[in-house]
Amino acid sequence: MTYLDTLGQNAKQAARLVRRLKASEKNKALQSMAEALLQHQDQILEANQKDLAKGQANGLSTALLERLTLNESRILGMVNGLKQIAGLDDPTLKTDSQWINRDGLRISRRRVPLGVIGIIYESRPNVTVDATALCLKAGNAVILRGGKEALESNQAIILALQEGLSHTNVPMTAVQLITDPSRELATEFMQLNQYVDCLIPRGGAGLIQTVLKQATVPVIETGVGNCHLYVHRAADLAMAQRILLNGKLQRPSVCNALETLIVDASVANEFLPTAASALKEAGVEIVGDEAVLALVSEAELATDIDYASEFLDYKLAIKVVDSYEQAIDHIDHYSTGHSEAIITNDYQTSQNFLNDIDSACVYVNASTRFSDGEVFGFGGEIGISTQKLHARGPMGLEALTSYKYVIEGEGQVRG
Amino acid sequence: MTYLDTLGQNAKQAARLVRRLKASEKNKALQSMAEALLQHQDQILEANQKDLAKGQANGLSTALLERLTLNESRILGMVNGLKQIAGLDDPTLKTDSQWINRDGLRISRRRVPLGVIGIIYESRPNVTVDATALCLKAGNAVILRGGKEALESNQAIILALQEGLSHTNVPMTAVQLITDPSRELATEFMQLNQYVDCLIPRGGAGLIQTVLKQATVPVIETGVGNCHLYVHRAADLAMAQRILLNGKLQRPSVCNALETLIVDASVANEFLPTAASALKEAGVEIVGDEAVLALVSEAELATDIDYASEFLDYKLAIKVVDSYEQAIDHIDHYSTGHSEAIITNDYQTSQNFLNDIDSACVYVNASTRFSDGEVFGFGGEIGISTQKLHARGPMGLEALTSYKYVIEGEGQVRG
Repeated sequence: MTYLDTLGQNAKQAARLVRRLKASEKNKALQSMAEALLQHQDQILEANQKDLAKGQANGLSTALLERLTLNESRILGMVNGLKQIAGLDDPTLKTDSQWINRDGLRISRRRVPLGVIGIIYESRPNVTVDATALCLKAGNAVILRGGKEALESNQAIILALQEGLSHTNVPMTAVQLITDPSRELATEFMQLNQYVDCLIPRGGAGLIQTVLKQATVPVIETGVGNCHLYVHRAADLAMAQRILLNGKLQRPSVCNALETLIVDASVANEFLPTAASALKEAGVEIVGDEAVLALVSEAELATDIDYASEFLDYKLAIKVVDSYEQAIDHIDHYSTGHSEAIITNDYQTSQNFLNDIDSACVYVNASTRFSDGEVFGFGGEIGISTQKLHARGPMGLEALTSYKYVIEGEGQVRG
Repeated sequence: MTYLDTLGQNAKQAARLVRRLKASEKNKALQSMAEALLQHQDQILEANQKDLAKGQANGLSTALLERLTLNESRILGMVNGLKQIAGLDDPTLKTDSQWINRDGLRISRRRVPLGVIGIIYESRPNVTVDATALCLKAGNAVILRGGKEALESNQAIILALQEGLSHTNVPMTAVQLITDPSRELATEFMQLNQYVDCLIPRGGAGLIQTVLKQATVPVIETGVGNCHLYVHRAADLAMAQRILLNGKLQRPSVCNALETLIVDASVANEFLPTAASALKEAGVEIVGDEAVLALVSEAELATDIDYASEFLDYKLAIKVVDSYEQAIDHIDHYSTGHSEAIITNDYQTSQNFLNDIDSACVYVNASTRFSDGEVFGFGGEIGISTQKLHARGPMGLEALTSYKYVIEGEGQVRG
């Protein structure tokens, strides 16, 4: 039996037990993990120092090192996250619907946990805690495969979490970490269909594409957001500028940040020069088409690649369009299906936009930065899905469940 | 641009139009396709004759030839199927939920079509019509890749369907058939992520495994059913026998037919000899463990492979167990997660079984043969999902939809 077979079998066995637990038992386990994290804070910070030293020696970028860094306040953040998730409603207590069919069978569609969830992620150690908490809360077992840069930190965190579970009815094997960081093992993990019900990659576009290509286990694709803001000719231009600056500047490195601005030609003269200088003042590099270049000084000509890019940085692509249809076509062509917004006060246009745009989140007169499970009111978020199967947009606890049909009869046979 | 790129682009373009159509426009298209099928009946039957002649020359089995065969009554069946699906409720008219978040944003989760659906199937030409009708009704475009044995028939059917669409608001490219039956193209189709939102394979275990392995497009796994019937010690044994015979005999070749019988040791003496002779009289071959061999004459010793098999034939594996736990463990180990039933009059045991069994459909005192979208009341069925992501169990029109979040604001930005 291989290493992953053992992990898989442990997880499947654990999932059988966890799915039968009461909400209170799962919540107690989350609380106990929170306490254990605090108790083992020193070991976790020590392990993190090792990762950081190794990272520096290996020449990791400042941004990567920053993501990798743990401190007392970040550990407290994870602890509070666990407690908050303990306080959420259990998503598996629900029956979606129940009816009696023509044969007199009572059919119920009950929410149930997915089973065993695999999480593949990069260098942020907090994902180890957040993902575990959400998966467990929904009644699942989890197998984690973090980045090799964070291996020491993740191992210390997992030991603490498992220690926390050891005092509860949740088996310690409900939470397991793959400690061998080889690529071969990662590929094997993505094809562990016998044990794993679902894979969720969390990280950059490269990681997600690799998982999509190699996995035979069903995947929920998350994250890449080439988000558009369309300033329609009937827009309140002051509102448009406020939302533009919020979308681009409030946190440029996240998937719901703005990457492309589209402006109706009839308002471009009035809107673009002012908006662009506000952006440039904040250090945003602007690329655009010929019409943009005529209105915005220091703008560079946008390439096809620019319009397709998720910059995640102080850079914005701008396009001027002659019609609503041209705006929709541009978004349809370049969007990654994450979040798009229109600013308009024209009622029919707003309704058309909501129907025409085929993205997970479509906004009228609000910032795309709101695409977030917590902001939506889900209490937490395992990621933002950009595929259409299973879950779309911000995914809360419900996305970590499936359903089953329960059919109760009195001896019926099919005629 | 490759052949598949063209098909994919056509489909994506068509999907954009179809998702904006009213229910009445889609229903008119379904009716028009029904009429066109009838009008082109002669061409379709002629094409089918060519497939059959080729199949006979190539030595196809009688069962395969039977599946491939079309006649007036089967075409009428397809026509009536189209009309019936036109009469169902449009699954995209619904808003799942709507609320106002803490920022005052009105958030709605609206049902929307999946977009472009790929169907990969084997030799039954009726799938061409059924799958098309369900996909279109839910507002999707469809690309079909049927078995090469049915290519002439499928081409004639698609021509008729497209001719039907030509009189309606649904573009003809909403329904396309891959006419090049090569394996390379099939693989390319399974990786057409740029255009295809979801793949549904319909056919035997081999086809489904191939699609799972090769696809990068999200797949809904359908079909394989190693279904179990557990006769608990508190069972009404007459009811148990009725349900056993129905499960095994009424239609052995389908995925919801019974493949394994589990019997509590305490009732095996009373139940098995009578039940087994009824089965044997109907021509069922029996394999079982030592306890079964002691009670049933002419039974052979069951192998591990037998217990794991979907026979789809007049063959049944039987196991005698000493406890409820042993029965659950056996099912957990060998089940494909399709449908399992318990016969018992013990209330607590029935409820435990419903919770413990991790399958799409779990029955108390009824036949597994009821696992079917039409029987469940969904009006039609695109397949039975044995995975847990997106859709589980019999899939009706809702399984062919996704959702999107519509967010309406008054200029809100994220703080």
